[in-house]
Amino acid sequence: MCEANVYLTAEDGREETLFLESVDKIVPEGPDSWRLTSIFGEQKIITGRIRTMNLVEHRIVFETGREQF
Amino acid sequence: MCEANVYLTAEDGREETLFLESVDKIVPEGPDSWRLTSIFGEQKIITGRIRTMNLVEHRIVFETGREQF
Repeated sequence: MCEANVYLTAEDGREETLFLESVDKIVPEGPDSWRLTSIFGEQKIITGRIRTMNLVEHRIVFETGREQF
Repeated sequence: MCEANVYLTAEDGREETLFLESVDKIVPEGPDSWRLTSIFGEQKIITGRIRTMNLVEHRIVFETGREQF
C-alpha cells in the first residue's frame, strides 16, 4: 500500500512530530487547512502548509509558521 | 514503489490531463507553484493548487483557476 506518514514541523524545521500515520487522502479544507484520511478511515484536519512530500519514502511534512512566499 | 501520477485539471474538473508520471517528490516553489521530481529524475514545475491526493490510487490532481477559499 502506498499511504504516507504525515509529520508537522515548526518553521525552523528542527522538530518534527508525527501527526497521522498511513494517510491515503489529502484534500484542502480551507486556507492552509487540509483534511487527512488514513487507510483505516481516521480523519484529522491539519493546519499548515506542505513543506515537502517524498512519496517513495512515505513521508509528507507540513509546517506551521509564517508565509514562505 | 509508491510514486504517483500527477494530473492537471481546470476549475470545473471535467477535463484532466496527465502532467507527470511516477512522481516521487513534491516541493513548493512559490505561490501556487510546485516542483515535481519523478523517480526517473525528471523535474517539472506545475502551477496550480492541490485539488485532491489519493496516495493508495497513486493519484494527485492539481487545478488551475480561481482561489477556492
